[in-house]
Formats: sequence, C-alpha cells, structure tokens
Amino acid sequence: MNSIVTCCQVRWRGKEMVDLIADYLENIEQRPVYPDVEPGYLRSLIPEEAPEEPDTYEDVVKDIERVIMPGVTHWHSPYFYAYFPTANSFPAMLADMLSGAIGCIGFSWAASPACTELETVMMDWLGKMLKLPEDFIAGTHGQGGGVIQGTASEATLVALLAARSRAVRMILASDPQRPETGITSKLVAYSSDQAHCSVERAGMIAGVRMKKIPTEQSDKYAVQGETLRRMIQEDKAAGLIPFYFCATLGTTPSCAFDHITELGPICNAEKIWMHIDAAYAGSSFICPEFRPLLNGIEFADSFNFNPHKWLLVNFDCSTMWVRKRSDLIGAFKMDPLYLKHDHQESGRYFYTDNSLFRSLKMWFVFRMYGLKGLQDYIRKHVELAKEFESLVRADQRFEISADVVLGLVCFRLKGSNEVNETLLKRINNGRKIHLVPCQLSGQFVLRFAVCARTTESRHIREAWRLITQLAEEVMQELPH
Amino acid sequence: MNSIVTCCQVRWRGKEMVDLIADYLENIEQRPVYPDVEPGYLRSLIPEEAPEEPDTYEDVVKDIERVIMPGVTHWHSPYFYAYFPTANSFPAMLADMLSGAIGCIGFSWAASPACTELETVMMDWLGKMLKLPEDFIAGTHGQGGGVIQGTASEATLVALLAARSRAVRMILASDPQRPETGITSKLVAYSSDQAHCSVERAGMIAGVRMKKIPTEQSDKYAVQGETLRRMIQEDKAAGLIPFYFCATLGTTPSCAFDHITELGPICNAEKIWMHIDAAYAGSSFICPEFRPLLNGIEFADSFNFNPHKWLLVNFDCSTMWVRKRSDLIGAFKMDPLYLKHDHQESGRYFYTDNSLFRSLKMWFVFRMYGLKGLQDYIRKHVELAKEFESLVRADQRFEISADVVLGLVCFRLKGSNEVNETLLKRINNGRKIHLVPCQLSGQFVLRFAVCARTTESRHIREAWRLITQLAEEVMQELPH
Ligand SMILES: Cc1ncc(COP(=O)(O)O)c(C=O)c1O
Ligand SMILES: Cc1ncc(COP(=O)(O)O)c(C=O)c1O
Repeated sequence: MNSIVTCCQVRWRGKEMVDLIADYLENIEQRPVYPDVEPGYLRSLIPEEAPEEPDTYEDVVKDIERVIMPGVTHWHSPYFYAYFPTANSFPAMLADMLSGAIGCIGFSWAASPACTELETVMMDWLGKMLKLPEDFIAGTHGQGGGVIQGTASEATLVALLAARSRAVRMILASDPQRPETGITSKLVAYSSDQAHCSVERAGMIAGVRMKKIPTEQSDKYAVQGETLRRMIQEDKAAGLIPFYFCATLGTTPSCAFDHITELGPICNAEKIWMHIDAAYAGSSFICPEFRPLLNGIEFADSFNFNPHKWLLVNFDCSTMWVRKRSDLIGAFKMDPLYLKHDHQESGRYFYTDNSLFRSLKMWFVFRMYGLKGLQDYIRKHVELAKEFESLVRADQRFEISADVVLGLVCFRLKGSNEVNETLLKRINNGRKIHLVPCQLSGQFVLRFAVCARTTESRHIREAWRLITQLAEEVMQELPH
Repeated sequence: MNSIVTCCQVRWRGKEMVDLIADYLENIEQRPVYPDVEPGYLRSLIPEEAPEEPDTYEDVVKDIERVIMPGVTHWHSPYFYAYFPTANSFPAMLADMLSGAIGCIGFSWAASPACTELETVMMDWLGKMLKLPEDFIAGTHGQGGGVIQGTASEATLVALLAARSRAVRMILASDPQRPETGITSKLVAYSSDQAHCSVERAGMIAGVRMKKIPTEQSDKYAVQGETLRRMIQEDKAAGLIPFYFCATLGTTPSCAFDHITELGPICNAEKIWMHIDAAYAGSSFICPEFRPLLNGIEFADSFNFNPHKWLLVNFDCSTMWVRKRSDLIGAFKMDPLYLKHDHQESGRYFYTDNSLFRSLKMWFVFRMYGLKGLQDYIRKHVELAKEFESLVRADQRFEISADVVLGLVCFRLKGSNEVNETLLKRINNGRKIHLVPCQLSGQFVLRFAVCARTTESRHIREAWRLITQLAEEVMQELPH
C-alpha cells in the first residue's frame, strides 16, 4: 500500500505539508479572495465513488490546487474583510498537530487528566488576562471557573439550558406541589434584536420563548435598561416567568455594546440569569484601554467569547466562564458506569464536552505571543479600522453608520439601499476584496472588518482605492 | 519577538513538530498507557499567569514532556482497550494541517464553497460505501443527504430537534386551533436502556420526555418490537404523543444491536421519527459481511455514525444522513442579512454547522487507504477481538458476557462483582493496559475494546497474560 501509514512516511509527507501550508499562507494575497465558482462546481471534478485501491499521495496533493483551491474563500487573505475574523496563527497550528497526534477525547478527568487540567488552568490564565472577578477563577477556590466550548452558539445554548434548569429548580422549591411539566412553556428569555442568530436558535432548541428587545440607532443599538425592565413587568403581569437574558458585547451587525452595568442589576434583582456573549469583542478586553467595555461583568452568571475569532487561537476555541460550576454540572450530569473513575468526585473538574485537547493551543499561543504580543495584535487591528474610518470620513460621498469601537467599520454611500447593494455586489464580484453587509435601521450597510493576521495599512488603502473606484462607477450608472 | 510568527519560522518548527509527533507515535507503547497522577497535578507545574513577554519555543517544547505527557491517557497505545476507539491516522493528520491553514468556517456555501461541496460529495462517497438507500444520497437528486456533525451526541440531538419540529408541524396541521405551547409537554421519545447517555441528555436539552425501553440479557440487550409497541400504546392511551425513537446499533456497554427491521415498521406506522445511532459499529458496515447489521435502514429518518471512532478519520467527524433535507433545514433555518449570498436558494446545500473543513480528512483518508484498506482495517480489529474472545473462552475461570460481534469483548471472572471490580482496579493500576467496565444485568463486566491502529496479536496476548496473572492474585486474596 503506498498510502501514508508508517511513521517514516509521515515524517516525509508531513514536512512536505508544512511547506505546502507555509507556501499557501505566504502567497495568499495573490489569490482572488472570493472564489469564482457556481454551486455544484466540485462534484464534476472528482469521481463519484471512493477508490477501491489507494490513490497515491502525489495525486491527492495535486488535487488540492485542482479541486479545492478554486472553491476556497480565503479567510486569511489580508483582503478578507467579511464577517468577523477567524483566528489563525502558527503556534496554534503547531499545537493542533500535537493535539491530533495525542488524539485523546476529554470527556472526563480519567480520559486524559492533562487535557482537563490544562483546560482549567488556561481558563484561569485567560480569565486573569481579562481581569474577571475572582468568582470566575477556578484556582481561587471560588465556586466558578471556565470551560472551553466549541462555539459561542454552543455557549449561549449551554448557558440557556443551565438557566432553565436553575429556574425550574427555584420554581419547584418555592412551590413543591406545582407539576414540572408546563413550567417551560411559561419561561421567557430575552436578547437584543441585534443579537446573533444563534441566540434565537438556542431558544428554539431549548423550547423556550426568546423575546427580542428592540434597540434604536439613537441608543447606538444597545439594549436600554428601561426597555428590559418594562418587558419583564409586562411578561410577569401576563403570568410568564422571565429567567434568562443574553447581553451582547460587540454585536454582529455593528459591534454595539449592551449596557450591562445597567442591565445586570435588573437581572440580579429578578433572579434572571445574565449571560454575556462577547464572541468577537471579548478578545479586546485583555487591553486595559478596552477593559471598561466589560464593566458590569460582576452581575453576570456566565460570560463567553471566542479566542478562535480574534485571539490567534485557531478554531475551535470558545471560552466560557460561569459564576457557579454547580449550575452547569447540575444541568448536564450523567453517570454511566463506563465513565466512572476513581477521581469522579474530586469536584475540581466540571462539565467538559467530548473534544480534543483544545487547551494546548491556548497554551502555545499565550506563551509564544505573551500577553504583550496579544495586546499588540488587538491594537493593530483597531488602528487599521480607525485608519479605514478616517478614509471613509474624509470622503463626502460616504457616511459612517455606527461608532467604530474595535476592528469593525460600518459604512455606506449616502444614497439608496439599491446603490449600496449594487456597490457591494461589484466589490465582491471583483474578487480582490471581500465584504458582507448588514442592516441597520432599515439601511443596507457595508461591514468592513479587519480580519487577517497579516493585514497591513497598505491593504487597507488598496481596499479603499478599490471601493471608491467602484463607487464612482456605480454612482454614474444609478440614480442615488 | 522570538515566537513563531513568520512562515520561515513555521517551516522550521513545523518540521520539528512532525518529527516530535512521529517519535511520539512510534514509541508510544513504551509509555504507561494510563497516567500516574493525582487530580490537580498540573497546576503546580506551570506559572499562575500567562507570561507578559513571549516564552521561547524551546521552553514550550520542553514542557510537553515535563507537564503534559505525565498526565496523558495514551488513547493510541496498542495497550489501550478502554471506551471505544478514537480514530488516528496520518492521512487525516495531514488533512487537518491543511484544514488549519485554510482555516475557513463553513457556515454557508459562500463562506467557502469548496468546504460545503466537498462535504456533500464525501457524504455521498461514504453513503455508497455503506450501501445506504438512494434516498440518503444527495447526488441522486433525492430529498436526502448527509452532513457532518461534531459528535454522535450532537447528531442525536439534531435528529431529536428535527423530529420535534416535524411533530409539532403535523399536530398543528391536523388541528390548527390547537395552541402551540403545551404540545412539547405531551411529546414522548424512546430509546433503549442500553443507549448512550447522550440520548438521555438530548431529551433533557430538548425538554421532552425520553423513556428508556427495558432490554433483557435473553434478547441480547436488544429492544424488542413488542416492548416498543406496548409502550407506544400505553402512552397514547395516556394522552401522550410518541414522536421519536433512537435505535442503537452497537451499544456502548456491550455492542448490542436493536432489531430495526422489526422496530422500523412500527415507527413508520406511528409516524415516529426513527434515528439510528451506530456511533461505533457504523464503520464496520463498509464490509459486506457486516452490512446485514444495517438492514432496516430503509425505515429510518436519520442515521449517524462516527468515522472519528473506527474509520481512521481523526476527531471530530460524525456523519449523519437524513431522508429529507428539508426536515433539518426547517428546524434550524435562520436568515440574517450577514449570512445572505447570491446562491442562498440553490437548495443543494443544507444546514452545516460552524466548523472547519472537516470533509478534507475524509477525502484524504478514503483516497489514501482506498475502500479495501479501510475494510482490511475493520476486519483486523474484529479478528483481534475474536482472538481475545478465544483466549477468554479457553480459560474456565472466566466467562464471556455478551456476543462478540465486532471489536468489543465483554468478559468477567466467574464470581462476585467485588472480585471483578478488584481485578479491574489492579489492571488499571498496573498502567500497562487500560480497560473500563460496564454493567450488564446487574453484573460488573470488563470491556475489552480493540482500539489502536497499531494493535497486533502480540499486544492482545500480552494483555491476556497480564489479566490472568492479576486474576490469579485477586482470586487468592478474595473469596469469589
Ligand atoms: C456576537 C456574536 N455571537 C455569536 C457568534 C457566533 O459565534 P460562533 O460561530 O462561535 O458560534 C458571532 C459570530 O460572528 C457573533 O458575532
Ligand atoms: C452508541 C454510542 N452513541 C454515542 C456515543 C457518543 O459519541 P460522541 O462522543 O461522538 O458523541 C458513543 C460513544 O462511545 C456510543 O458508543
């Protein structure tokens, strides 16, 4: 068999692959950032069935350029400004190689003690970088701690389920006669109308009402305490039971920040679980100048953000802290015999998902960049966004659509939605830079997110040159 | 900064890492398979906080042996016989390196067309290897298709949620006046009492009743049609609405198989969604001699197994097929503007999770092993299990506790649970081989699962030598 099955072959082919990926990343800006293919392009390029006999490695490698690359959206091109960043760094990639080789699944302490333990300690390291309240740090012998989730969507769901379980317990404790079925249909959860779609989906999954709290441009798209308070009162009057509020720090459309210093006390007074989703923005809180954005964390029951977005830790790594570990353990506990082990009740470790050794990449990244290196990285992206903002502001034809706080700039041509939609289409069809839109107060807005690790000022200026050039074309063609 | 931030550095350090992991895997059998550490061992070995300035790469690498390895349970040691296997192969590791470098997130077609498209085609390749009914193959222009999930637990949940959504739709269609709230509290789902704990957890998450169907040793721990039928009738009589049945092919305790040829028609007649969880056993269905175990698939609404367990595709890769894609899409659809793109309604693609380019590793593995190579791999593990079974059967002091169908042997000393618990403790404390127990009909049973890619006959014989030696000791000390 000529496939890679021996350690000797992998030494050889693995090193070739290292060169292949270094070449890919070194030359990525020469590739069109957005692919020029139609749906279904790939099926005709490869056989309809798996081969009976092994293909050679050479054939497989050749197909990377022939089959895969033409259909790749290059998220790590310095010309990629769509969505939010997804992290990519060499220390994380090295750690992932090691994690793949160890290949342990961390569903319990015994399944690989190093995996569970490094996770707990890395969550403490990161929690300290963020200056989280001591309650959230496991090593302080408080009741809280951190755990890695796959995605922010998962964290939102896990928090919602823990909140549901806590709410049902509290209701039954205060009224033991009440039948348990039927309680869920009375529960009501809240989030901003700017929240990520995964928050609404979490409500669907858990089978609870999820109400969207309206926000206004004049409030910078932040949930107002007064609005939340009024909705809670109305719902209680209607016999419902408010139990969960998902605040967003750094919303997906415009990077808006809910006022958690104001919202937190309301939730605490009403015994509503406050979860904070800071998927993108959370990484910035390691910089003292951005840490005030997290003020109010002391009122939260759980908090989550994605180092796999903006902290150089490759996907997947979404970090979640809870004030009380027992709230999570209680909601998910399962004890089949095949998962029992001697240290079951050591109590230091709590719900971990089936997953690889994800904390290894946090460890590699934190050590090889150091806190300062990570802060520099965040600051550079924010500066690049400010640079882009200045370019937009200096051009009378354009307007900025939302405050630029971190690495996202929302902007548009002064004019109709149609003209902006056409502009975006032209931009993306050019395949030189890639952006996605959002909607703010009924307006079609272009989002420019600084994403790649290698983006520099020259890329920003080149992007702006392209955008203005296409804007000129569009404005000549369309009434605006 | 002396960290690995340039392509040039990663060429150098990446190749060192290739050697490090090749060394690790080449010499893995010399390491104690189960670690000799106490809970909390790791915290004292590393600083309490992340460094301000970068550590050198040399320091990080040194810490792999000092900090990590002493606490690793070596899942890929040929002496690891615990749980079920988790896959580990060089082709998959190479693909993962590439996937990490491309680092795209596949939440929509536009986010990386190659990612979505290769996934659909690889699911067809694998579906054909399994000889799934055409309904499940996307390329046949049927209504079904496959999608990669992170874990079998996730697939069970996704199927349950799709089933819940379908059930609610059907109920509302037949009785439009009925209020939607309250329906969920009438729903009832079923699974075997041998089902994996994630099935029960899925019920908790979705907030629906999940009833365990009792099984018997005399029926080889398989759910009987008669039992399911009776429970359905009783529940309907009590005003409940049966809507979901999770069948298991290859249960976690003993690798038992529910009779889906008998259970499927019952579910179909009652409009109950039948999901099949074949997390471990599914890989074997690529061999004609094991394919009959999947007979009855034609009655299923969804089917899932883990190539990341036994098909050489590294974690995470859990493959799920549904008969009707629209059942999944309908249950999860969310359409925020930032996820819209030109090919939104091409209809060929359906719900994909936020994830990396997971299909790349399926592609590498299927091509570099070929179907024959994969079949050989499965057959070898089954043979090794049979070899172990013969050794047990030849020893009058032991008994086999469940039919050996694939790579799992359940066995015990004839005698008390205590004597078997003591034996297992001795085995694991020896750290030379690693097993976990299960409970079957009140008996404490040892599970011997052939797990590692490199396990050979000599390891099996060595394991048996150790087990019998310890058994002798235990039997001399304890009454049995
Ligand atoms: C505010 C916010 N929450 C959640 C998410 C979803 O993150 P994930 O892909 O980790 O689930 C995003 C993604 O951009 C986001 O911006
Ligand atoms: C029958 C069965 N289902 C589900 C699972 C869980 O698999 P996963 O870890 O992919 O969720 C297992 C794990 O061993 C299993 O044996």
